[in-house]
Amino acid sequence: MSKVEFRQLSPADFFYRNRELAGFDTPAKSLYTAFREIIENSFDGAEIGGINPDIFVTIKERSEDVYTIFISDNGIGIPGNKVPNALAKLLFGGKYVERQSRGHFGLGASMTVLYSQITTNLPTRVLSATRGSKVIDEYHLMIDIQRNEPIVRYHQQIPNKKNWHGVAVEVNIEGDYRRAHNKILDYIKATALVAPYATITFIDAYGILYRFNKVIDEVPKLGEAVLPHPYGIDTEKMLRLLRIAKQRSLAKFLQSNFQRVGEKTALAFLKSIELKPEKDPRKLTHDEIVKLVQGMNNYEDFLAPETKCLSPIGEEVLIAGITKELQPDFVTAITRKPRAYGGHPFIIEIAMAYGGPNIEVSSEPTLFRYANRIPLLYDQYADVAAKVIRSFNWRMYKVPENAKLAIITHIASTKVPYRTAGKESISDRPEIEREMRLAMQVCARKLRVYLSRVEREERIAKRTSIFEKYMPYIAQFATKLSGATKVPPVDFIARGRKEGEE
Amino acid sequence: MSKVEFRQLSPADFFYRNRELAGFDTPAKSLYTAFREIIENSFDGAEIGGINPDIFVTIKERSEDVYTIFISDNGIGIPGNKVPNALAKLLFGGKYVERQSRGHFGLGASMTVLYSQITTNLPTRVLSATRGSKVIDEYHLMIDIQRNEPIVRYHQQIPNKKNWHGVAVEVNIEGDYRRAHNKILDYIKATALVAPYATITFIDAYGILYRFNKVIDEVPKLGEAVLPHPYGIDTEKMLRLLRIAKQRSLAKFLQSNFQRVGEKTALAFLKSIELKPEKDPRKLTHDEIVKLVQGMNNYEDFLAPETKCLSPIGEEVLIAGITKELQPDFVTAITRKPRAYGGHPFIIEIAMAYGGPNIEVSSEPTLFRYANRIPLLYDQYADVAAKVIRSFNWRMYKVPENAKLAIITHIASTKVPYRTAGKESISDRPEIEREMRLAMQVCARKLRVYLSRVEREERIAKRTSIFEKYMPYIAQFATKLSGATKVPPVDFIARGRKEGEE
Repeated sequence: MSKVEFRQLSPADFFYRNRELAGFDTPAKSLYTAFREIIENSFDGAEIGGINPDIFVTIKERSEDVYTIFISDNGIGIPGNKVPNALAKLLFGGKYVERQSRGHFGLGASMTVLYSQITTNLPTRVLSATRGSKVIDEYHLMIDIQRNEPIVRYHQQIPNKKNWHGVAVEVNIEGDYRRAHNKILDYIKATALVAPYATITFIDAYGILYRFNKVIDEVPKLGEAVLPHPYGIDTEKMLRLLRIAKQRSLAKFLQSNFQRVGEKTALAFLKSIELKPEKDPRKLTHDEIVKLVQGMNNYEDFLAPETKCLSPIGEEVLIAGITKELQPDFVTAITRKPRAYGGHPFIIEIAMAYGGPNIEVSSEPTLFRYANRIPLLYDQYADVAAKVIRSFNWRMYKVPENAKLAIITHIASTKVPYRTAGKESISDRPEIEREMRLAMQVCARKLRVYLSRVEREERIAKRTSIFEKYMPYIAQFATKLSGATKVPPVDFIARGRKEGEE
Repeated sequence: MSKVEFRQLSPADFFYRNRELAGFDTPAKSLYTAFREIIENSFDGAEIGGINPDIFVTIKERSEDVYTIFISDNGIGIPGNKVPNALAKLLFGGKYVERQSRGHFGLGASMTVLYSQITTNLPTRVLSATRGSKVIDEYHLMIDIQRNEPIVRYHQQIPNKKNWHGVAVEVNIEGDYRRAHNKILDYIKATALVAPYATITFIDAYGILYRFNKVIDEVPKLGEAVLPHPYGIDTEKMLRLLRIAKQRSLAKFLQSNFQRVGEKTALAFLKSIELKPEKDPRKLTHDEIVKLVQGMNNYEDFLAPETKCLSPIGEEVLIAGITKELQPDFVTAITRKPRAYGGHPFIIEIAMAYGGPNIEVSSEPTLFRYANRIPLLYDQYADVAAKVIRSFNWRMYKVPENAKLAIITHIASTKVPYRTAGKESISDRPEIEREMRLAMQVCARKLRVYLSRVEREERIAKRTSIFEKYMPYIAQFATKLSGATKVPPVDFIARGRKEGEE
């Protein structure tokens, strides 16, 4: 009773035991998560190569409660010898750079392989070829969960006769498709809404084909990789930079390792914290390192973080997508200027759509959330966007109690502050909450102008309909008075048109 | 642009980069999380030894935005040679057993040491002695984050002259105390509310002392460790059990490794999935293993999971605690029968309190959430309890639009389905949502009875006050009519008492 045994878990074992943290929760949610993790990798694989994504997905029932997801993309592929680690080893992923991307935990694909294995005991089949590769590598993979190492069940190389490049994955998982179906469809539709440059073909488990064709050719420019910003640096990151520093002076070290730090800024900053610019960065004492880190976080004269690493959707694309999908009576969108939280730049985009046939009447606005172009469909109540919407007094903006109002939110960032590794909701960092509130106010004000105009037009229409009613009598009366015999046509007046117009 | 570098992250590096997943988010939240992770370990350390927790905590400002948390407990202590790994290595923790406990990710304490290090670059000081130990081990610890290994900066053994046992931790972290203060106080108060067997002494950063004395001696019986239940088994767990199986027959293997499986059940179950009971468990084929696992999850005649591993708070303790802290006009509580989700047993407890001086008037009920006796103070909107409350039509239960209504929820489980490693909200597993709804209905019905009575009493009081007003006149009139001269006393009638009573 009073003795506790200790032991070490591998990352795979940790996430095996706590798989709900990565979105593998109920059978329905797990199927959905597996699906989205794989399709997000396919998007990343194409966009990183500047390729218009052309993605083919099927979900088939294999046996009772077991489904086969097959997905094939035209991305840059994974080099053959890297495939086992990339897909069957947890926390093994693309190198960490300050750049916006869909996935960044190094978890998604390997968690899917792990979940497949623990529910069906089957290996995951992977095909991969990089551009120009003479062969296609085929693997059947499982994971040694206790050691977090890939197990290669089968490997062969096939001649790449058609010069294919990309990744294809076939994975079997236990799931509840009937409950997952709507979320999966919503996810694809929502993805297509903000990716008009991609072609997606999906055959669902009932055999129904959905096809979203690309309507524009331009692939979004990916954000560029940038150096870290001084804000948000911590002692661990600083120690790692100092360990490999080649510069002999602190001033040079800062200029070479951080964005927005030129010579002038470096000298002014070092003066403010009383450190000598010519000091050898490898000879800093413990206290000097802490002083340097705290100083960098508190110094107010650094320029705001660079934003070429970000890739917002843009007001035009938002409005075009919403107009196509929701067909609202009114739509407005705003892409805010870049801001930063803890050294991470971000951009908030908001769109509001009102009326039309596709938005439901509700006492709460219908919310569509995106982060780095990924639709977020679960945990809406926990999201900062829902918090901001709750705080709004919609009556102030002339929105009726029950209205057809849809709000679209997008955060683009090098580091989206997700609440969970399942990537479902955004945490309420003050900087983000503030930007979202301001952006929503801008849109809501435009909405108020529109709704005021509608109100005015309705008043005018009412008045006009009174005119319309009495005008024939007035005309008859005037005709009689003037002694004329023919009553002039009056219909066009009420309809607000000139004589002779249809 | 089109090349991606791959590399492996250590668990420490993963959580360093994604620390918000473990609750280390804003400076205020981080201070709060560090505080609760340490105090929860102290509670576990005492309760596991059947000791009344006596915990001493101080938070002091060390320098601008840097705070020192010191905590000392009287628990069973950590063996000296285990201290570095237990506190400075991530995912290293107490052995995984099917038993209810506060912490179970093996993350909290080491994440606190990690966060301290990256914000202040200071080691964490730890003292530890087990019961009967002749020495106290003192360590100053940091973490090699890239390798996930403890760094021992200093170690000494001090004679344990006073036979102390327990753990003391002193950790320095950057934080925002002013914003964290209320949450920390709320946390201690809420903890004390359900732990009347513990003594907590807390000196806050402003130097104010708070003391919660134990009022009962009985330490709650911890849940006992039990074998896993057949529901919720997956192929990974099955393979691990098969790998070390000593039994020569499948029937014996099932009986020895799972709860609720006797000989009769084992034979009936194996017959239902057409596997021979005498088969050697180490000679199962792939397909047989899958069949066995799926069969165990779908077989309907296993008894419900054992519940001696659970430790609910109990209706009496809930009512006593609430009465003391909230002083409501009405209180009711229910401890539901144990249920299970995916093989994990759980118990839902609900209490409702109405009226009195300490519950605020609000259009939404005030919610206090607990999981395994831990108060949950963040992310309320994401919690299954909030979801259930939103779905209630409170008017049906005679609750006015704005009311003084508090709802207390507790889930006790061997595996609480938290949404995040920060342990702040419970996910809406259907089995849990259902139990919570049923429990709330039971309480709400009692509340309705109470509120109906109040309504009736108010009506009677109103009618009585009319009686009271006219009774003297009636009495005078009747006196005159009867020819008597002295008007009889009538006050007692209106007050509902018998003549002569005070």
